Amino acid sequence: MLIFTEEEIREYVKINKESIDEIEAAFTDLKTKDVQMPPIMRVDIPEYNGEVDIKSAFIPGYEMFALKVSSGFFNNYQLGLPSTGGLMFLINALNGQPEALLYDNGYLTDVRTAAAGAVAAKYMANEQIETVGVIGAGAQARYQLIALKEVREYKHVLVAGKSKRRLQEFKEEMESTLKVSVTILETPQEVAEQSDLVITATPSSEPILQNSWVKNGLHITAMGADAQHKNEIDPNILKRANYYVADVMSQCEILGELRSALEKGVVTKDHPVMELGDITSRAEKIRTSKDDITIVDLTGTGAQDTRIALYAYKKLTEEK
Amino acid sequence: MLIFTEEEIREYVKINKESIDEIEAAFTDLKTKDVQMPPIMRVDIPEYNGEVDIKSAFIPGYEMFALKVSSGFFNNYQLGLPSTGGLMFLINALNGQPEALLYDNGYLTDVRTAAAGAVAAKYMANEQIETVGVIGAGAQARYQLIALKEVREYKHVLVAGKSKRRLQEFKEEMESTLKVSVTILETPQEVAEQSDLVITATPSSEPILQNSWVKNGLHITAMGADAQHKNEIDPNILKRANYYVADVMSQCEILGELRSALEKGVVTKDHPVMELGDITSRAEKIRTSKDDITIVDLTGTGAQDTRIALYAYKKLTEEK
Repeated sequence: MLIFTEEEIREYVKINKESIDEIEAAFTDLKTKDVQMPPIMRVDIPEYNGEVDIKSAFIPGYEMFALKVSSGFFNNYQLGLPSTGGLMFLINALNGQPEALLYDNGYLTDVRTAAAGAVAAKYMANEQIETVGVIGAGAQARYQLIALKEVREYKHVLVAGKSKRRLQEFKEEMESTLKVSVTILETPQEVAEQSDLVITATPSSEPILQNSWVKNGLHITAMGADAQHKNEIDPNILKRANYYVADVMSQCEILGELRSALEKGVVTKDHPVMELGDITSRAEKIRTSKDDITIVDLTGTGAQDTRIALYAYKKLTEEK
Repeated sequence: MLIFTEEEIREYVKINKESIDEIEAAFTDLKTKDVQMPPIMRVDIPEYNGEVDIKSAFIPGYEMFALKVSSGFFNNYQLGLPSTGGLMFLINALNGQPEALLYDNGYLTDVRTAAAGAVAAKYMANEQIETVGVIGAGAQARYQLIALKEVREYKHVLVAGKSKRRLQEFKEEMESTLKVSVTILETPQEVAEQSDLVITATPSSEPILQNSWVKNGLHITAMGADAQHKNEIDPNILKRANYYVADVMSQCEILGELRSALEKGVVTKDHPVMELGDITSRAEKIRTSKDDITIVDLTGTGAQDTRIALYAYKKLTEEK
């Protein structure tokens, strides 16, 4: 079994057109192949405010598939540790033997999650995006912006978040990395009202984006909600949006923004839902007007994990 | 992250009283603690007749818990590979970091499965066991006999199976290891009719132990069925038995012998079922007569995996 470290993986796998294309293909796979993707497995550790999730998917035609272990331990900041972590295995699909351990501490998850946001924006957002709003100033807020730059030439970023120190770090990093201006605002409302595209990247369990702040034409990347208790988006936005797109319907209705909207009775089970793979498999943009409001709900799929792990393996074994 | 090889693990972890006691404690944990044990996750690889199962359980009071990946690839014999494999992770329950990789190729699963058979026999079988019958001559048939020797002083083994060569190897190995006589018989019927305790250790999907062969007083260790399509035991035996004991009811009714009996309508949902933890937590023998027929249905639990992984870690870090 080969073992790759986070440092090696970070060197060979970047957020760029190539990795985003891999993730686009993962969503298409879900529509065009008999992908074996079981429901997410979750182990709760209530004593320590932690959880471990396991995701996997076998995509026919590939000789390996990934099994991903990811953790969220929300008291870790008290220990001076990052709250999320993880690793991936590549398992030989012909004989079951483990082939590689990608000990990435969650980096590949960050890449494939950001890439999904970019894939959605590519097909769903308006062509002209001047200003991108971000709610949250953590790692995924950064990665989403980096990925988005591959599909939209935005110039300004508006950001709101809880910690002044983290917002300042975010501003400095993103201005330097992306050559855009970053403005720190006081409230999510100000961010939303002045943006053409909004990314929500928080672990919130109460809506942090309200319907009254959403102007016509907005595209929303809702990437925070991936658990039964999480909710970032006012459910009325789902009802109002011209297009609500789930990464995978069966996950969004139990873990994503769709769950909250269903639970609160704002939308019903027959609410029109597209999946991201419906769009990528046709490679067609979906909006019919510049004023359409669109939203993508990202819970994270095993198919993305398998595709990014296969991509990392290829880069690490062929180019290294 | 520490990495231990199969060779090291085999050197420090044996089937003996100590490891059997650990597994007994795992079943007691399931009754006395708020164990977090999610349903088994399964990835199917239909193209290659393979499956990968993931099991896990967090047991309160321990600072680590196991996540086990086990594979069954049933064409592997054509490749000259063993059909089963696997490994375990120990994850820190306080912060989610992986602490150790036990790259055991399924050895610890063999140990904890055999130990469960011994724990059940200890409380369920008659005290005097002269002759043990085994149907199947694979690895688990061997391990079950070794574990059973720790709780019952049997003298003779009768065995039936499909391959003459494998039966001969089994006989030679077991006679040398256990100092018992091993007799190869032509049919499972002959084995069952002459035994005081029968172990079924096959991947059969049709009953290989019939009700008419079962004499009064028999204890049956049904360890083969751990999947929706597997079935070793005539469902009428479950109905007739004085005690049917599941390792975990919620697993046996979808994966074990109980599943087949329910599906065929031989028993109903209100059939009296005990769990192994009901017995171990009281540490009381259950039979009221030498003539009672008893059966334990073993599908394999995440709690066993966590207990055996913690035990292996302790042995490997403290004694090595």
